[in-house]
Amino acid sequence: MLGETALQTLLFVFEGVGVVAFALSGALAAVRKRLDVVGVVVVAFLTAMAGGTLRDVLLDRSPLFWVEHEYWLWVIIAIGVGSAIILRSRHFEPTSRAIQWPDALGLGVFAAAGTQIALDMDSSPLIATLMGVISAVTGGILRDVMLNDLPWVVASFQLYAILAFGGGLMVWGIGAVGGSPQLAVTVGALSITLARVLSLAFNWSLPNWRKDDHTGTIELPR
Amino acid sequence: MLGETALQTLLFVFEGVGVVAFALSGALAAVRKRLDVVGVVVVAFLTAMAGGTLRDVLLDRSPLFWVEHEYWLWVIIAIGVGSAIILRSRHFEPTSRAIQWPDALGLGVFAAAGTQIALDMDSSPLIATLMGVISAVTGGILRDVMLNDLPWVVASFQLYAILAFGGGLMVWGIGAVGGSPQLAVTVGALSITLARVLSLAFNWSLPNWRKDDHTGTIELPR
Amino acid sequence: MLGETALQTLLFVFEGVGVVAFALSGALAAVRKRLDVVGVVVVAFLTAMAGGTLRDVLLDRSPLFWVEHEYWLWVIIAIGVGSAIILRSRHFEPTSRAIQWPDALGLGVFAAAGTQIALDMDSSPLIATLMGVISAVTGGILRDVMLNDLPWVVASFQLYAILAFGGGLMVWGIGAVGGSPQLAVTVGALSITLARVLSLAFNWSLPNWRKDDHTGTIELPR
Repeated sequence: MLGETALQTLLFVFEGVGVVAFALSGALAAVRKRLDVVGVVVVAFLTAMAGGTLRDVLLDRSPLFWVEHEYWLWVIIAIGVGSAIILRSRHFEPTSRAIQWPDALGLGVFAAAGTQIALDMDSSPLIATLMGVISAVTGGILRDVMLNDLPWVVASFQLYAILAFGGGLMVWGIGAVGGSPQLAVTVGALSITLARVLSLAFNWSLPNWRKDDHTGTIELPR
Repeated sequence: MLGETALQTLLFVFEGVGVVAFALSGALAAVRKRLDVVGVVVVAFLTAMAGGTLRDVLLDRSPLFWVEHEYWLWVIIAIGVGSAIILRSRHFEPTSRAIQWPDALGLGVFAAAGTQIALDMDSSPLIATLMGVISAVTGGILRDVMLNDLPWVVASFQLYAILAFGGGLMVWGIGAVGGSPQLAVTVGALSITLARVLSLAFNWSLPNWRKDDHTGTIELPR
Repeated sequence: MLGETALQTLLFVFEGVGVVAFALSGALAAVRKRLDVVGVVVVAFLTAMAGGTLRDVLLDRSPLFWVEHEYWLWVIIAIGVGSAIILRSRHFEPTSRAIQWPDALGLGVFAAAGTQIALDMDSSPLIATLMGVISAVTGGILRDVMLNDLPWVVASFQLYAILAFGGGLMVWGIGAVGGSPQLAVTVGALSITLARVLSLAFNWSLPNWRKDDHTGTIELPR
């Protein structure tokens, strides 16, 4: 079994992959909408950081994640400027699809870590799980709202936010039966990521409205 | 005259009706835009809870309303999932119009209670009244922004936010002449609700821009 | 050299011009979208105050700017109602262009003052500069998002947010070499404003994507 230090290293790597994946998805969406380079950086920042920020504001927790870990800001600025330069004269549709895989890690780690952070502040299981969901999906929703798209996170019929919800309950459950926070977050994050990857691979989706009229009406921003 | 306990019971009933009405208006709008079931729950939650949440964040007040009264979350989840299932294969335009009546109670009780909460924290009359307006209208505005509509609350020319403003001043006034908070909130909430119902019944509206060009340009989301 | 009192008076004047310019730009955009009079006031308020409010919430700073300086609320209400009445039956395109000049003062003073406020709370240079940028551009972004436009601030290819960033670093630098806060804010604000005015006069812009396809796709809300 992995020791606590190994678990912490693993979580740090997950977090990094998640921030980069979220920032990239924001940068790609902003480039597609022809925002200027500042706009690409702003949307990348918003997509990667808004979820954790809203969670911290709602929990009245300070300093904020990105104030404490300032290096992420430099990473995001680099991703934004880099995306703007590289994508300036290329097609990027393949990249856009490829990003779903690292994004699955971001979903897992943001949801699991957000839940644990709220549990550490004595939130109830439901509230903590919600804080995890908020950490994981707010950035993607704001990205799309800012770019005048219907929020893909809740309009795509894909399994996404609901996996964050299930994984948050799992984080709480592992802690409730005596597991350490690191173990709970690691298992929770991996479970969400695995479920997301499986749902992508097998095309699982939420129950559809009416087969005939929904396809085509919802724009998928990635 | 009613005793304090009766007033509190009345306010609790109002609050419940308001939360349900706001959540329903969010769920209906999300169903209409063909969001998935998670999206319907998210928009229902946002519509019902964003106003009180923003008020609490601006007043630096914790715990948040829905953290303290967790049962509302279950109610909202039930409303969201229920709406998604029931409306899946039906027309809901009549329901959409019917919701304006309970919504009027939500407008009244959210505005009046929000004002009183701010007054209890020593806000000035103007600030307290604004906090009441924010409590009452933020959810509806975010619902429409998230769904890419012009915000109905401030684009419909109906008497809505302005009634919340007037009622907030009334809550302050009743307290200023010695009325108890419960009395102030009850009278304020009922006055706003009554004014809203009358404005609906008699089709009162805000001054229009130009008779010839505004009708038809503004989409009414309910 | 100017004394501290003179600098403070100057900053107060700048702030006033900035609030009025931002509120006007919000009111004009709302009138153009045919919002009702309440909507015009709400968008004017949001455009002028959202940036400082978000900064204060992120820094966990209270009371909020507009709670402390309540008179600005009356000014904004007057601007909103006045705009709605005056513009009711007129073309306002010229006004819309004219507003860019006072807006440049708002950009400068909001960014410089926001940076200094964060520095006073022991933020790092990067975080403080970001807080200045957030103070200066959030209002304009929310104005456009609420009205369903792509955010002009980050979609216009004009030099705008990036000048706030540069000026924020200048505010920090002046303080780091021993300048007083008032001096740093004044010089920072004037530098940003001057750079903005020059960029408008000489039509400087951010690097464009592709010459042939971007013009026309981005709607400029002012």
